[in-house]
Amino acid sequence: MRVNGINYRTIWMKDSSVFMIDQHLLPFEFKIYEARTYKDSCNAIKSMRIRGAGAIGAIAGFAMAQSFMEAPKNNFRKFIEKAKLEIESTRPTARNLFYATERVFNYAIKSENPILSAIFEAQKISDEDADASRKIGEFGNDLIKDGFKIETHCNAGWLAFVDFGTALSPIYFAHQSGKNIFIYVDETRPRNQGAKLTAWELQNEGIPHKIIPDNAGAYLMSQRKIDMMIVGADRIAVNGDVANKIGTLEKAICSKEFDIPFYIAAPISSFDLNCRSGKEINIEVRNENEVLYQTGLNEKGNLQKILVCSPCSRAFNPAFDVTPAEYITGFITEKGIIKPEKNEILKLFACS
Amino acid sequence: MRVNGINYRTIWMKDSSVFMIDQHLLPFEFKIYEARTYKDSCNAIKSMRIRGAGAIGAIAGFAMAQSFMEAPKNNFRKFIEKAKLEIESTRPTARNLFYATERVFNYAIKSENPILSAIFEAQKISDEDADASRKIGEFGNDLIKDGFKIETHCNAGWLAFVDFGTALSPIYFAHQSGKNIFIYVDETRPRNQGAKLTAWELQNEGIPHKIIPDNAGAYLMSQRKIDMMIVGADRIAVNGDVANKIGTLEKAICSKEFDIPFYIAAPISSFDLNCRSGKEINIEVRNENEVLYQTGLNEKGNLQKILVCSPCSRAFNPAFDVTPAEYITGFITEKGIIKPEKNEILKLFACS
Repeated sequence: MRVNGINYRTIWMKDSSVFMIDQHLLPFEFKIYEARTYKDSCNAIKSMRIRGAGAIGAIAGFAMAQSFMEAPKNNFRKFIEKAKLEIESTRPTARNLFYATERVFNYAIKSENPILSAIFEAQKISDEDADASRKIGEFGNDLIKDGFKIETHCNAGWLAFVDFGTALSPIYFAHQSGKNIFIYVDETRPRNQGAKLTAWELQNEGIPHKIIPDNAGAYLMSQRKIDMMIVGADRIAVNGDVANKIGTLEKAICSKEFDIPFYIAAPISSFDLNCRSGKEINIEVRNENEVLYQTGLNEKGNLQKILVCSPCSRAFNPAFDVTPAEYITGFITEKGIIKPEKNEILKLFACS
Repeated sequence: MRVNGINYRTIWMKDSSVFMIDQHLLPFEFKIYEARTYKDSCNAIKSMRIRGAGAIGAIAGFAMAQSFMEAPKNNFRKFIEKAKLEIESTRPTARNLFYATERVFNYAIKSENPILSAIFEAQKISDEDADASRKIGEFGNDLIKDGFKIETHCNAGWLAFVDFGTALSPIYFAHQSGKNIFIYVDETRPRNQGAKLTAWELQNEGIPHKIIPDNAGAYLMSQRKIDMMIVGADRIAVNGDVANKIGTLEKAICSKEFDIPFYIAAPISSFDLNCRSGKEINIEVRNENEVLYQTGLNEKGNLQKILVCSPCSRAFNPAFDVTPAEYITGFITEKGIIKPEKNEILKLFACS
């Protein structure tokens, strides 16, 4: 996608470094961050310099490749196995992370040229992610009618993937095909990925939108101002339950209550065949300071952190929730739109 | 209620001035603001230096009394009628505001000593508010079992009324009667009245609590971590529909989905017999800057405003929503707990 007229991917590898758009600084500053080692890449995931299911998958693949490049000859496999565990411990919820580490490791470790194989496979994961997102956009566009008002939660745009995104990809295709659409962007507390990233993406593409407090979703639905919701996914169980950004469950329940189609846009790499239901998904609880503090621009235009409650207050900060399949209208995948049912999900894999 | 060991009401009148706890500065600074004229009082409502249904009612009554004191003899009634319209135009949603202006005006205008009567009636409204809140606490306490985890939205504590509050009053009584309770405080974007005011109140009373992002409500419910919800109300229609802080509707829908009792705590002055259903309630849309900017303490301990999204972003900021009666378990009033049904609501007035 384009930033100031130049085409970018969210993340890419060059030589032994991984480069990424620094999401800590957006929307206030556009800067590229360079992770020189696999440990740098791990830190970039942990600190959420890069975030979003697909982007986490891509960097995990690249970090795995970095570990192959960094591994000493006399301790090759052990070093890589340790690195794999380290990469996998950065964040627990997104399926794509484990999908990428497993794929790069399994493919490269038995290769005759493991380093080149690891780089090749990591690049392939990244390319496949961009390609899947593009197809999700094409399929999802069919669901969007001219004049639609669409609500989305968090950021499942191109910043959350390698390119195009998932939830926003159908929106980009609808806009490009000349449909008149309006997007309500959930602010998405506590980290404000909606207000900070989704709004910035839509603004760069010239798509009409407004930020709303997360609290306003049901009100807009009750006023018949939302025609559909599209959100992303961090992990999808075989029964169709979906882990996604905290607040998704509330929106799904409210959408059902108001008969508003609620779609999950996600690539096949977000489906976890080893996960039978949402109950098995590990929900990350993040530091309470994400709730207690906010970061933004002060009147001098400098980034500033402020405390938004009493210094004595404590917070509870679960980063994801699980939306049971019964609240989901359908999954928009790179292989088409399917119902949130086990049979349909298994079919995705059968023909891959 | 007590602040630093001293008993305060949220608002009181002395001579011709109205004094109030300045809620702009909480929880960072505790300061009393003096409104010397009815216009000062109007500005205090508009700017939300004072907010919350009951407190708005109290200040509206006092402001009405101030206008009686300020009215010139040769233009007495006209001045007061103009002041009444001005007070009533400060905020549209809370029933209590109109209840207070009408009551003070109607009682005092036909009195032989209208100024004294206006002051007397305004004081009576304020005292009745505190008394109603106390009774709401006593009745509501019966619903709370030892060990309960209770979620609340926005601030319907004593800062939102003259004393005790509504949603928090049963919580104060439960705590004082020795019950072990835990409160999940919805942050309540965009103005963070939960994080800023409710958490501060609970902290002053030593009641265990944590702030949660508004997005986390349904997740906690799905994990069976919420035993009941209690919130306040800004206006209640005769059919039991309730206008309250934006986000209330989402919580009510989710509570019903998870079979969690959802109570509205409100004095009779919040019921509007002239309002047949929620559809007739005027929902205030406030300035988008409340969403786009946040205020808090910087690292030097000074109040600082920051922009939390791109400078080009716009927002939509409805301040309230309407929760239909079907999602409400019951109303906790100063006359007892009733079902959200027209007959029961009318009975409240029949015996008053």
